[in-house]
Amino acid sequence: MTILAISGLIRPMLEHRLPAGLDVRWFMSAEEAQEAVADAEIGWFDMNDQAAMAATLRAAKKLKWLNSIYAGLDFLPMDVLIERGITLTNGAGINAITIAEYVVMGMLNIAKGYREVVRAQDRHEWLFDSPGKRELAGSKALLLGYGAIGRLIEPRLKAFDIEVSVVRRSAGENTLGPDEWRARLGEFDWIILAVPATPETEGMIGADELAAMKSDAVIVNIARGSVIDQPALIAALEGRAIGGAFLDVTTPEPLPADHPLWTLDNAHISMHLSGRAQDKMFVRSGERFLANLDAYLKGEAVAPVFDPKLGY
Amino acid sequence: MTILAISGLIRPMLEHRLPAGLDVRWFMSAEEAQEAVADAEIGWFDMNDQAAMAATLRAAKKLKWLNSIYAGLDFLPMDVLIERGITLTNGAGINAITIAEYVVMGMLNIAKGYREVVRAQDRHEWLFDSPGKRELAGSKALLLGYGAIGRLIEPRLKAFDIEVSVVRRSAGENTLGPDEWRARLGEFDWIILAVPATPETEGMIGADELAAMKSDAVIVNIARGSVIDQPALIAALEGRAIGGAFLDVTTPEPLPADHPLWTLDNAHISMHLSGRAQDKMFVRSGERFLANLDAYLKGEAVAPVFDPKLGY
Repeated sequence: MTILAISGLIRPMLEHRLPAGLDVRWFMSAEEAQEAVADAEIGWFDMNDQAAMAATLRAAKKLKWLNSIYAGLDFLPMDVLIERGITLTNGAGINAITIAEYVVMGMLNIAKGYREVVRAQDRHEWLFDSPGKRELAGSKALLLGYGAIGRLIEPRLKAFDIEVSVVRRSAGENTLGPDEWRARLGEFDWIILAVPATPETEGMIGADELAAMKSDAVIVNIARGSVIDQPALIAALEGRAIGGAFLDVTTPEPLPADHPLWTLDNAHISMHLSGRAQDKMFVRSGERFLANLDAYLKGEAVAPVFDPKLGY
Repeated sequence: MTILAISGLIRPMLEHRLPAGLDVRWFMSAEEAQEAVADAEIGWFDMNDQAAMAATLRAAKKLKWLNSIYAGLDFLPMDVLIERGITLTNGAGINAITIAEYVVMGMLNIAKGYREVVRAQDRHEWLFDSPGKRELAGSKALLLGYGAIGRLIEPRLKAFDIEVSVVRRSAGENTLGPDEWRARLGEFDWIILAVPATPETEGMIGADELAAMKSDAVIVNIARGSVIDQPALIAALEGRAIGGAFLDVTTPEPLPADHPLWTLDNAHISMHLSGRAQDKMFVRSGERFLANLDAYLKGEAVAPVFDPKLGY
């Protein structure tokens, strides 16, 4: 009988919908998880504590398929996944809609200087001119990363009459190759980072890239803090070398209270909330898992698969 | 020789581009305007002081064409325009792009609870969950008013996978007639007011309409404060009968510092800034005026024409 080790948090949503003939081992703590996964072929054991989740994976010596609600899983031991030949389905796309919406919100807030409007309302002060006077219409955006999130960002930006250039390996209209975008950085009003966290993307925006940007360019990062050389970014923001940054992700997370990013008037910190700004993630993830479980038990392919060799 | 009375503020942009054969009378104050318009056939005399602008119109006894950068001109004496048969071209659409962008920004900010994120950054506090968890995707919007602004709002909302219903006289897909929308109010997550200020739209959202809305419905008003029965709105917001309001316009403007709207946690006040959140209005208005002037001098039609009998 196929053994499934799965977090008890998902039990109310899934228990009555699981197929017959499974040996289901629910657990409620990291300790219970260690025992539950020991003989499991299938596992779903997401934990806020990344170290505990990695330890649970190490203890799952018979695992063939691991499912996760998370999209970024770079904190798991990739060597374990590779050595044991474990198939890993991740949450790519599960919260992509809200993240794409969040990106547009961040751009609009910076364009219109809306943070100052919020503060003015808190002071009961009627402003007579807009703190920001940019229009998205007619501006140009560079979109780095064309996965589930990037593909949802693109049409939203185009609806605002933004000219969107996408960085991807395959050629196409308004597409820049991985070796082309750096030379074109000075053309864009918005640089949007939606790349996966891999060795290649680590520090991909450094001092040279920042220096090549327009003085009013705005960076939007919904990827990983490590994609940007953060000290170089802080220097660029302090020196007004670029216009601003909307940072859903930072290094570290959470930011300590005395971190300089909090106080820069052109840094907008959204505390990795973009993916959390919805209440449909668990439902979508549960539906996807059930469909994948059905496929897996029939010997068919599951999706989307996270490749531990690529890191996404 | 055709006499043009025109504000000196526009002189740097327009003087070198005006056609020959015009008697151009620039003025720099409301007093000078009174004299400049006395014999003018064409006038462009926008003033922040609405009463002074109305008085200037009364003094322009030979005026045939009045141009304005403003879209809403309900503060001018309509009877004077009608009696003298003056053609009035207004600024409809001149700042429509930024207003449409502002509407989406307001909706996203409320959907994600972003105002709380701004306040948290000001406290250097890392939030661990999103204060707002709505997605625009899959929600339903009622768009009242389908002029230059409404027509730009619609495609932007659709790009977010919002189902948009438009209120207009002519029939069409996802279109509600002027007598149909009230009965359907309970279906919508967003009610967007982009109607002109006319006797028919005054107070069109009152206690009955508010009571018919969903308890989490959000009103976005970029029309005029008078379109909403504001005491009824405040009662609905205080009593949580609706979810919230994004109010670019209020009664009065500016709001006094002790007005209750400032402090309601579900009222977002943007101080009539939506149209000002751009820096292209004067350029666009100047270009439009020059094109209209060329047409007028050839005896052709000018546009867009404000109808003083309709009030828009």
